[in-house]
Amino acid sequence: MGAVNVRGAAPKQDRSRATRQRLLESAVTCLAEHGWTGSTVTVVAEHAGVSRGAAQHHFPTREDLFTAAVEYVAEERSKALRSPARGLPDERSAVGMLVDLYTGPLFRAALQLWVAASNEPQLGPRVTALEARIGRETHRMAVELLGADESVPGVRETVQGLLDMARGLGLANLLTDDSARRDRVVAQWESIVRDALAR
Amino acid sequence: MGAVNVRGAAPKQDRSRATRQRLLESAVTCLAEHGWTGSTVTVVAEHAGVSRGAAQHHFPTREDLFTAAVEYVAEERSKALRSPARGLPDERSAVGMLVDLYTGPLFRAALQLWVAASNEPQLGPRVTALEARIGRETHRMAVELLGADESVPGVRETVQGLLDMARGLGLANLLTDDSARRDRVVAQWESIVRDALAR
Repeated sequence: MGAVNVRGAAPKQDRSRATRQRLLESAVTCLAEHGWTGSTVTVVAEHAGVSRGAAQHHFPTREDLFTAAVEYVAEERSKALRSPARGLPDERSAVGMLVDLYTGPLFRAALQLWVAASNEPQLGPRVTALEARIGRETHRMAVELLGADESVPGVRETVQGLLDMARGLGLANLLTDDSARRDRVVAQWESIVRDALAR
Repeated sequence: MGAVNVRGAAPKQDRSRATRQRLLESAVTCLAEHGWTGSTVTVVAEHAGVSRGAAQHHFPTREDLFTAAVEYVAEERSKALRSPARGLPDERSAVGMLVDLYTGPLFRAALQLWVAASNEPQLGPRVTALEARIGRETHRMAVELLGADESVPGVRETVQGLLDMARGLGLANLLTDDSARRDRVVAQWESIVRDALAR
């Protein structure tokens, strides 16, 4: 879509879509920066430059907004990772690319949401379902990036453990910049994973 | 200590120590169950059966109480892991024992504290320092349990990556019981890590 009509104004449905997208992106930013407690619908609407009423038109509850936001950004991330010629850029290893998924604002936002969900009953089931969907998609991407053959016994668990490691590296990066240590771990594990997949 | 005097009452310093210990253990339980937002000093004092005044005598601020609590439980955990003949029980692999460190109430409590610290400036530096201390101690235990030789290039990063994986497995266990999947991942990675350390 994105078409502009003859008078130069975007059609109503495009404006509505743009508002929705701005709300989702602001929600992820606010969650990553202020945590669940500090991220109300009002805070997100203000960050997005949208009225509270408009925000509630798109997302009736706070839970709707934040689960939709994490899902939207995860989908955008998958698209970005799949699109450019589907190959690996020379400068970044497959393990490095997978670990990168867990060190940006999306992981920080998702982490805030998972942890809030562990204490808030109204958030629990939705976030559990969301985590399962994102987990499956990430696993699928990892198998493709690594060129792994899951019909070989153990390969599935090798890939899963690698993604668990990536998640742990994301957590280690929460309070301090862990990038120097992380680069050394990634280099070593790239070689361990290659050996393991070739066994 | 733990001595009882002739009148059958514990000496004052023992009672004070027992109160302190009960507060620390209650703090970890409350943090794991209710998160940072739901864990006030009042909630912890009530859980420990101690007056709010007594709690504040031991821990002047909320930050004092919770950082002391996570540190205390981490130390108890280290002691427990080091004491019984220092050897491995037959039924649990070294990788399995390390992963176990990240799936109990201590990890849940620490996770709540790390995540709160990422949004609360008054908590940040203290939790960062605490995380560094616990991280070093856990790494030292891991090297010992695995019988790893860190003078060999790459071994340090192999052990670090394994602990990152354990942390990620802990996170995966936050919202759902992930034990069946985790056992398969641990079995596969036990064998991969053994191979990597023998290279």
